[in-house]
Amino acid sequence: MKKIMNRPEDVVTQLLNGLSFSYSDILERVPSTGIIIRKYQAEDQVAIVSGGGTGHEPAHSGYVGKNMLSASINGPIFVPPTVDDILRAIKLSDNGQGVLLIIKNFDADVKNFLTAEMIAREEGKKVDHVIVNDDCSIDKDSFKKRRRGVAGTIFVHKIISAAAVDGLSLEKLVLLGEEVVQSLNTLGVALSPGTIPGGKVAQFELEETDISFGIGIHGEVGYRREPIESSEKLANELINKLKCQYDFNSTSKIAILINDLGSTPLMELGIFANDVRRLLELERIEVVFKKVGHYMTSLNMAGISLTFLEIRDKKWLDYLKLSVETYAW
Amino acid sequence: MKKIMNRPEDVVTQLLNGLSFSYSDILERVPSTGIIIRKYQAEDQVAIVSGGGTGHEPAHSGYVGKNMLSASINGPIFVPPTVDDILRAIKLSDNGQGVLLIIKNFDADVKNFLTAEMIAREEGKKVDHVIVNDDCSIDKDSFKKRRRGVAGTIFVHKIISAAAVDGLSLEKLVLLGEEVVQSLNTLGVALSPGTIPGGKVAQFELEETDISFGIGIHGEVGYRREPIESSEKLANELINKLKCQYDFNSTSKIAILINDLGSTPLMELGIFANDVRRLLELERIEVVFKKVGHYMTSLNMAGISLTFLEIRDKKWLDYLKLSVETYAW
Repeated sequence: MKKIMNRPEDVVTQLLNGLSFSYSDILERVPSTGIIIRKYQAEDQVAIVSGGGTGHEPAHSGYVGKNMLSASINGPIFVPPTVDDILRAIKLSDNGQGVLLIIKNFDADVKNFLTAEMIAREEGKKVDHVIVNDDCSIDKDSFKKRRRGVAGTIFVHKIISAAAVDGLSLEKLVLLGEEVVQSLNTLGVALSPGTIPGGKVAQFELEETDISFGIGIHGEVGYRREPIESSEKLANELINKLKCQYDFNSTSKIAILINDLGSTPLMELGIFANDVRRLLELERIEVVFKKVGHYMTSLNMAGISLTFLEIRDKKWLDYLKLSVETYAW
Repeated sequence: MKKIMNRPEDVVTQLLNGLSFSYSDILERVPSTGIIIRKYQAEDQVAIVSGGGTGHEPAHSGYVGKNMLSASINGPIFVPPTVDDILRAIKLSDNGQGVLLIIKNFDADVKNFLTAEMIAREEGKKVDHVIVNDDCSIDKDSFKKRRRGVAGTIFVHKIISAAAVDGLSLEKLVLLGEEVVQSLNTLGVALSPGTIPGGKVAQFELEETDISFGIGIHGEVGYRREPIESSEKLANELINKLKCQYDFNSTSKIAILINDLGSTPLMELGIFANDVRRLLELERIEVVFKKVGHYMTSLNMAGISLTFLEIRDKKWLDYLKLSVETYAW
């Protein structure tokens, strides 16, 4: 399992130092922590903070910068950040208007973020949170929706951050975040699994010709395997499953995010985007905003995820379009 | 060789349609051609145009947009665009100030671009060109430098385009381009080869544990294979080879480009960037500008290239920093 790395135990530190060197115009690492903080200072708004385990680059440091996140907090690979780091990021980001935490829905992440929130509140800080649960894949054993937080989180970052710039209070941002999350669904498909740095085996097994629908971003297996046929067939499966989450009518408008899961070249994303375009035109579903690229990955997994966000308020589109200074949006 | 695609013979058309859908705010495909043209219209400047075979995404359409390329011309996979398409792009881009073609140094590319330039000149157009030959790897058999045009081409796009915005004439842009090319060197290393869509075998063979130094962006093999050891060792080899191309002193300043060759996750680019930072600090070589990400790929090849540009004029840095509206810079 070849990777460009040094000792596996040094991956996170070296990665954070490398990212803060690479994008030194916009962000820096808080020394000896997993915190990446923006250089741009906004005085008069709620601070938006997110984070999670590493292994999802450019999430979350790629969304730190002017008009987007104030800070990201980065744990070990696929492990949530510590309560201490989250608490410190809250204090560093707060400028008196309060702090909103955007959390991906995984038990361990939720636990650490909410513990830090509780401590900060006890210390007199105004802190609240939004939990993102956009993954609409099905667990094969329980047949329950998994509702993990995956690539759609990036749309939540973007909209909430722009709304904070627009002057919304912490309370209003929480309400807005919850509305956005309810309109958000993501489904992924893997062509090949990722490998943990230093790991000797892939995170799950997949035959040379097979793909897996409904995989997660931490090596969680999907709901169905089958031989790969075509980009069109992938697009059709993902669109059909996503559509079932909505009650679209002739005036419905959506934003879409086509996301590389780690090692998918833009050539393949572009071809897939063309199939998504064609199929949504046939369905008469209007796409008013789209992002196509590398946004929320899972190590070197090959594959894509497709996210739908139904635009229920014209403001959301303005917020998606507000220009930012980050390295990955 | 799993890929997200449909029929291999449809790859280029579907890709160009997918890209023009994905980034419809900034560019569009000229129907039935390989031309991607920007929507933003600049009246009073030389138009900058580039292109080549597809398979290098986001090159070259990712650099089309305000303050950067007026158009890109895209041929079949690893095959240069036709003379007809190049000629058409020249005519579509020209607004009376002339057109500068930026060409990667491959015989077939140079031939088609220069033929189109000659025809356009005969028709009364002001057209000139810059040929980029930044690859400083060695051909194993002849021990000659290969001097192909590779990832450093992106720096030439950026500087020349910004200089055109700054009002430089076609003649001055050619001189500037030649100076920049002389200060530009790139070297790549592959961890695994790419595969042509529909192809049954990889473009070259590489043992499970080996890497290859000095590979090209069309599957050309490198100058040395060896087992992979560490990111630091890769950085050391590339930096040492690149350094030999210059006569650095204590006031030298460089821009660097750390580029994914197709399927390298940002995690690995970030770790490599940290080693480059450390080693250049030890060498006391000052890095005044850096780009780290997906810029010039070779299908799904895993690996990276490192580019040095010695900044010989402060203006170059201003040109690198001028903000643009493209999807990949």
